[in-house]
Order: sequence, then C-alpha cells, then structure tokens
Amino acid sequence: MIDGLSKKKYLELKAPDKDDAVSAKERILRELKQEFGKVRMPCTILRMLHPLCEQAEWKLTVTLGWNGQEWEMLCLEQGSTVERHYGICADLGSTTVIVQLVNCHTGEILAQESIYNEQIRFGRDILNRIFYAKDQPDHLEELRLAAVETFWKAFRKLEEKTGISPESYASMVVAGNMTMVHFLIGMDAFCVFSSPYAVWADRPDFLRASELGFSFPGYVYCYPAKANYMGGDIISGIIASGIADREEVSVFLDVGTNGELVIGSRDFLLCGAGAAGPALEGGSVKTGMTAGEGAVQYVKLDGKEFTLDVIGGGTPKGICGSGIVDLIAELFLRGWVDIRGQLVPEASEKIRFLEEEYAVEYAPSLYFYQSDLDEFLNTKAAAFTMVEYMMNLIGLPMDAIGQFLIAGAFGTHICKESAVTIGMYPDLERERLVLPGNTSLKGAYEMLLHRENLEKAEKIIEKMEYVQFGEVEQFIHLMDGARALPHTDLERYPSVQKKLRELGTWC
Amino acid sequence: MIDGLSKKKYLELKAPDKDDAVSAKERILRELKQEFGKVRMPCTILRMLHPLCEQAEWKLTVTLGWNGQEWEMLCLEQGSTVERHYGICADLGSTTVIVQLVNCHTGEILAQESIYNEQIRFGRDILNRIFYAKDQPDHLEELRLAAVETFWKAFRKLEEKTGISPESYASMVVAGNMTMVHFLIGMDAFCVFSSPYAVWADRPDFLRASELGFSFPGYVYCYPAKANYMGGDIISGIIASGIADREEVSVFLDVGTNGELVIGSRDFLLCGAGAAGPALEGGSVKTGMTAGEGAVQYVKLDGKEFTLDVIGGGTPKGICGSGIVDLIAELFLRGWVDIRGQLVPEASEKIRFLEEEYAVEYAPSLYFYQSDLDEFLNTKAAAFTMVEYMMNLIGLPMDAIGQFLIAGAFGTHICKESAVTIGMYPDLERERLVLPGNTSLKGAYEMLLHRENLEKAEKIIEKMEYVQFGEVEQFIHLMDGARALPHTDLERYPSVQKKLRELGTWC
Repeated sequence: MIDGLSKKKYLELKAPDKDDAVSAKERILRELKQEFGKVRMPCTILRMLHPLCEQAEWKLTVTLGWNGQEWEMLCLEQGSTVERHYGICADLGSTTVIVQLVNCHTGEILAQESIYNEQIRFGRDILNRIFYAKDQPDHLEELRLAAVETFWKAFRKLEEKTGISPESYASMVVAGNMTMVHFLIGMDAFCVFSSPYAVWADRPDFLRASELGFSFPGYVYCYPAKANYMGGDIISGIIASGIADREEVSVFLDVGTNGELVIGSRDFLLCGAGAAGPALEGGSVKTGMTAGEGAVQYVKLDGKEFTLDVIGGGTPKGICGSGIVDLIAELFLRGWVDIRGQLVPEASEKIRFLEEEYAVEYAPSLYFYQSDLDEFLNTKAAAFTMVEYMMNLIGLPMDAIGQFLIAGAFGTHICKESAVTIGMYPDLERERLVLPGNTSLKGAYEMLLHRENLEKAEKIIEKMEYVQFGEVEQFIHLMDGARALPHTDLERYPSVQKKLRELGTWC
Repeated sequence: MIDGLSKKKYLELKAPDKDDAVSAKERILRELKQEFGKVRMPCTILRMLHPLCEQAEWKLTVTLGWNGQEWEMLCLEQGSTVERHYGICADLGSTTVIVQLVNCHTGEILAQESIYNEQIRFGRDILNRIFYAKDQPDHLEELRLAAVETFWKAFRKLEEKTGISPESYASMVVAGNMTMVHFLIGMDAFCVFSSPYAVWADRPDFLRASELGFSFPGYVYCYPAKANYMGGDIISGIIASGIADREEVSVFLDVGTNGELVIGSRDFLLCGAGAAGPALEGGSVKTGMTAGEGAVQYVKLDGKEFTLDVIGGGTPKGICGSGIVDLIAELFLRGWVDIRGQLVPEASEKIRFLEEEYAVEYAPSLYFYQSDLDEFLNTKAAAFTMVEYMMNLIGLPMDAIGQFLIAGAFGTHICKESAVTIGMYPDLERERLVLPGNTSLKGAYEMLLHRENLEKAEKIIEKMEYVQFGEVEQFIHLMDGARALPHTDLERYPSVQKKLRELGTWC
C-alpha cells in the first residue's frame, strides 16, 4: 500500500446551504480531519477557493504534502485528479544526478534521467568544490545554483518525455552524501572534511521546495546522515536494501566516489567508510571510463584472444567498472596475472612493457597497466578488509554473512563470478551475493511512497555505530592479505581454486 | 508572564569538539527541545549557520515563531538580542487601520499608528468594495494590495518613530471583520453578504507573512470569526474584555461600522449583529464628522447657550459621536427635545425651520436636524433593543447586568451620563458602565503576547450562539419603545427622571 509523503484525495462535498453554511475552508478540512488531522491551508489555496469550488460543483481533489509535522494543502483541483499524482526521487551524486519521476498513485516510475552534476565545472573532485566555496559566499551560491540547475535540467528532460511539468510535483526526496546536501541547501561544506568534523546540518528534514529553488509548492525531504562520510545516500541505501529489517547479518557495501560499508541486521548496525571507490569505478584507470557508449563492459579471455562486449556495439574507447572486474578475473584465471596481482609478461605477447611498466592490450591500442591493476587491487583490498575487520569485531566468520550486497552503479553491472574470482566478494553461495543497483535512488523512491520510512531512517541512524578505520592499527596488515588475487589465503575461495584447477592455471 | 506567538531565546553553546561533534543545527535544536519541542529550521537559517555560529563564538539568539502547529526558527543573531523582540498587532477596520508596534520582551507598546484604509478609494462603504471586487480577480487583487499598502504605510511610520524595521517583526496579529480579512488574504467577499452566507474562510489561522505581502519571516495570525457579521474583531474584543472569563453576565456592544452585541459570562455567550453603527459614529449626521481637528466632542447647554469642547480648540467644523450623544442629552434635559425625540421649536430660537425640517444651531452655522435625530435614535433603539431582546431570551432583567461595555472608537469618548440620559446605556450604577476602548486592537495585543488565547478564541467561538435578529418578529415592536428618550418606560431610568425633575424639565 502506498502511504507516501504526498497525498491526493478526491472529495465530493455538499454545496453550502442555509442549514450548513460552513465556510469553504472548514468544509474541506472537516472532510480531511479524520484521515489527516489538522491540515494547513496556505494563502495560495485560500485564494483558489473562489471560483473553483463552485465551478467544480464542490467535487474537488486536494493535494497534501507532509512537512514533517503536519499535512499542508498544496493544490486544489476540479474533479478527480488523484491519478495525476507525481513525485520525484533523486540520487544526488557528485558526478551523476539520477532523477526518477514517479506516479505516486500507482508507484510506477514514469521516467528516469541521469545527468552530470553541473557542479563538475567547479571541480570533478568533491574536495576541489569544497575549497572553491570555502568562506566565499558567492562561490558557494554558484555551487548551490549549479546543483539546482542540474535538477532543473533533469526536470525539463522528464517533462519532454512525459509532458508532466515540474510545477505539478507534489513531493521530492533527495538522497545524497553530506557534502552534496550541504551544497544543495547552500551551506559551506569545509566542515565535512575538517576537524572536529562537526557539520552545519546533517538532518535537513523537510525543506520548502521554493526555498531550494524549485517551482512546486511542496516540500523536499533530504535523507539524514549518520556521519560526515556516512551520508543520506547510505541511510537511503539501508532502507532500500532492507538489511535493518532482517534477522540474518548482511554486508552492505556501497561503491561510489567513496566506499561505505554497513554490516548488520535488525539487531545491530556497524558502519564505516573509506576511500574505496574511484578505482573500482574505473576512475583512476588510465583507459577507464564510465559505463557509456564505447565502454568495454564485459570481457572473456579464451587463453589467447579477448572477446569484448562494448556498450553500443561500436569500437571500444575504454573500459568501465564491470569490464575491469571481468578483465582482471580473466587475466588471473588464465595465468596472465599471478596471485600477487602482477602481470606475467611471458603469458602473452599482448603484455608489453610500455611507459616504464607492463601493460596488457585488452583491445586494439587500449592498455590496462600494472599501475591500474595495483590501484584497483589496493582499493579492492581496502573494501574487503573493511568487511573482514568488521566481521571480526562482531565475532562472526565471513561465511556467516546472510547477504553480501554491493550497491552503486558499479555494483549493478559487474559479473558476480568475476567479482568472486578477484576476491571482491567472499566465496559465498551466489544467491547470497546481491547486486541491488542504485540503492540510494531506490531508498529515495521508498521514502517518497512510504512515509513510515521517516521513522525507520531515524531509528537506523540511532542504531548505527560508526567505526573509524583510520584508527585501526591492524588495518594495513589485514589489507596486505586482501591485496592478493583473490586473497593470500586461497582456502577461503574454494570455487576460485576449482576454476583455476579446471583451467590448469593452478600455480 | 509573556508567552506569546514569537519567542527569542539566548543560547550559550559549547563549540563542537572531538567529543561532541554534533552538527550546528542539532546543537541548537537540542538546546531548544525541552522548551519548544521539535523546532523547524528553514533554509534561510541553515544558510546563516556559517559563519555566524563561529563568529558569535556560539553565543546566539534564536527567534522562534509559532505557526499553529510547531515553532519555526525565524532568525539567528549573534549575542543576546532577546530585548530586541518586536511584534505587531492590528485592528483592521474598513475605515481606519490601527497598528501597534509592541516590544514582546516587555509588553510595552512602542508606537501606534492609525491610518485610513487605502481601500477607501474603492468605496467608503464596504459593500461598494465587495461589488467592485466581485468575480473580478484583478479588482480583488487591487483591494488586497490596498490593504497590504495600508499596513506598509503604517509600518514605515512606525519605523520613522522607533527605528525598528518591518523586517524585524517576529509576529503579527490582525483583528478584522470577515470582509476585511477576506480582502487582506485576497478572497472574494461577496459571500459575506449573500445567501447562504457561506464564506471562503472564517478561520485563516496562521499565514506566512511573505504570502500576505509582508517582509518579515514569520507568521500572521488573523483572528477567527464566529459568523459573517460576527468577525474576528469581535472575538478579539471578547478576549480583551474578559467577559467570557467572568461569572457575572456582561453586555458587550461594539459600535463601529456595524453594531455587534455579545451577552454572556464564562458559562454562555449569545451574540448578534445589526446595522447599528454609522449613525452613532456621526456618519449619517449632516454635519457629522469623525473625531478629529475641529470636531465638537463635548456639549453643555445651560438652557440658553451651548458650551462646546472642540478638538484642537479652534472653530467647530462639525460634530463627532461623543458630541452628538452630549448634544442630544443636553437638548433633552433642557426640554428642547421631547421624550419622543422631536425638536421643540418653542423652546429656543436656536431651533429653526430649515430645508423643510426643524434643526438646532448648536454652533455658528452648524445645525443638527430632526432627521439626524431620528436616524440617531433609530440606531440607538436598534442597539438597545438587541440588548433587551437578548436579556429576555436569557430570562434576566436589565439590572442583572454586571458590566455593560460599549467598545469601539465611538465608545471611548462618550460621556457616560449623556449616554444614559438618551437611553444608550441602561440606568445602571456608573461603575458598571464600561468604555473599554478599541477592544479589537487590545485583543490582538493580548493574542500577540499570550499564546493561550489561541485556544481561548476557539472555545469562545464554540460557545457562542448566534441570534438572527432579522428573524425576530417582535423586534420592531420592541424598538418602538426604545426610540423614545431615554425610553417609553421612563421608570427604567430613575437617574434621568431625577435630573429632569431637578432641572424642572419634567414634562
């Protein structure tokens, strides 16, 4: 059942007469009272009552928006328009902003837009933007407007696709990390990265859309954050993945610009964050690119030649996250990369010494370098070690994990087998390895349609315990073991052992 | 104790450190939680947190405004500014708008402005304005803007006097009749005067100042109305006069453009309205004028000559309400007007036949006509009869009235003795005759400073029973008796009888 942040309700009212001359406002509100309590009717609506009520013969549809405390009337329309009830949910990423236009009557996603964050022109890296805006109100305002502009661009594209104007949205939910939400509101974000790490607002709650720069009359809910590196996007992800509802212990790893980890169940939640992301997404790989036209997304190696799956089907231009995982897995299974993650030049003539290091030509003139491999494996190791360390803290072995979720755009497309092969995932039964996709966006969608998630989000934040990996001495030591392919302790990866044996690559 | 619609609170917060890195928003809100519950912090405030919090070394004053449901943060200032806490209360009349700037910290009225309602240019009479705006949205908008402009004019004058800018108001309360409030919000008011008398909104509640056209960040509370002719100005008056708190039965008569009557105690409240006003205020008297420079405000007659008290001390230009009451009383006591309200030409040579009727020259070239007298006495009779009829309904004699209050600008200045003499008041002990002044304005002031009045107003409206005088058959009959001076039944006025006897005017 949909019970979201906005409502549309069709009312058939009796016209006033001598025996019941109650005012139009009270006439409407008394119909709503039982279901919605005291409803706020702002000036905009008061001014619409005449001549609309009479024109509509008192058959009216009201749109209500939850403002965190009460329902506010956002719109009044003639006749029944309950089926024209729209909301927006968004994953506000530092690189990409993904927006869905939702039919809040049915829950159907009517259209989706994924566009670059306009803030990129102030720095691809989030830290550059932070320094650009630091103590410079005019620069901060530029960043804020860039975020707003990004949404507007997406809104206009959604309108082109659906004919639904941004004025008619009834509610909006945004999931983003701490910095992105600070910028969207117009708050300096230097605090996010500087001691004592006290930010300006980590629970923005419901803000008027108009104050943010949007044109619909309702409210925007920004997911609250747990900590500076554990933003609203992750809380949204926890809601979407349902890990805090389950009895079994789940691992939730979100790989985006950063890597955030949550391990827990309905009884407890541990969380922590690390700079795990960019390498996995192909960001620091020399020929890496995001998953778009021309990106190699899947790779097979028959021992001699690569078979590539290129997005759009044309000439490969680079390699994206899922392609990298495949590539490394295949190289390893065929013995072109050893267990320590080193390219083995004698394995193939496609491995050459270029620019002072070895590199493998995975496509004509496209190389994957030893340094790419190193960085990727370091990151993989960091992510895996966060998981391992936390499981140790809890006192559970890796195979006690009920579900291992890798969220994020990256996680959506990777091949599970390859990911296990290179040790990104533990070697669990494959149905326990879950690729939930963009959980930040999904959680925003869930919030839009299920108001009970407001309380759930609060409870999740309360329950979460933050682990500072930076302060863990044994961390570097643990990482060493995880840097290998799939892991120093191959016994932990029986399925990979088996494959290596079958292929005769056992080394 | 002041516990008003807005609050200022000074906070001395600990700066964030490693052990307590709670965000600025939560740092402030947790200090407020116990006293104010969940406080809404809008974007405007979120954007001020930096650099203000640090500049102020976390010594901050917050301004909170009640929005009907929760406290909303309106302002954030460095250091303690709790003594600079300002609110506005207003009596929104169709002719005159009176505005007071209140120091909400002390309750002191810092300045008052009384200015003409700019809507007058669309019609002095309220009905003209209603027809001007009827079903013409652009005309309605003109009227709305005229009301807003009136307030702005008053605000600017208040600023000239006090240096306090209209941006710094924290709250505002408006008491006005149904039509005036409809126009202020921008609602068609034809409904107020046309069957079935169902208006658009009689309980506007808290509206954003910005939506109404004001520049301060908080809310405007408009007093709710009981019925079309029993507006928020009367509810405000009941609050101000305290009649609903007392054990004894009070009569509350507000004489403005209309006449509104409330009789009751803490146990019950009866109310009704009639067109009692204009004549009493001097509106339909040929040489009548409002109480300003040159108006005759008090009159004495020694049997031959008039002694006049003229506002400003110069040449009399006309006569205002209190002057009229004095004049009629004196004419009656000296036998120049008989008990039936007829001028007695043989009593003085100042009574002449002019323009087809008798008139008395009360000042050089200023005449009070028989038709003026008739109209005044009709109105007086209507007002008195409303009281009498209601007392009959309750089953109480007139002398059971604990307090008889005549509110309104008119009531402020009339001489009690004269008013009893002409039968406007019943002949009660003089201390039971009360002239409370502008109770509409006073009730607005009380609301501004005492939030408990919100609930009180609701309860008063619930308790009030509206009596439709128009439907009372015996009304005309009752009025006949009341048209006499002071009343057909002179036995009811022993003090007047005594005076007449003493002056030898007993007829």
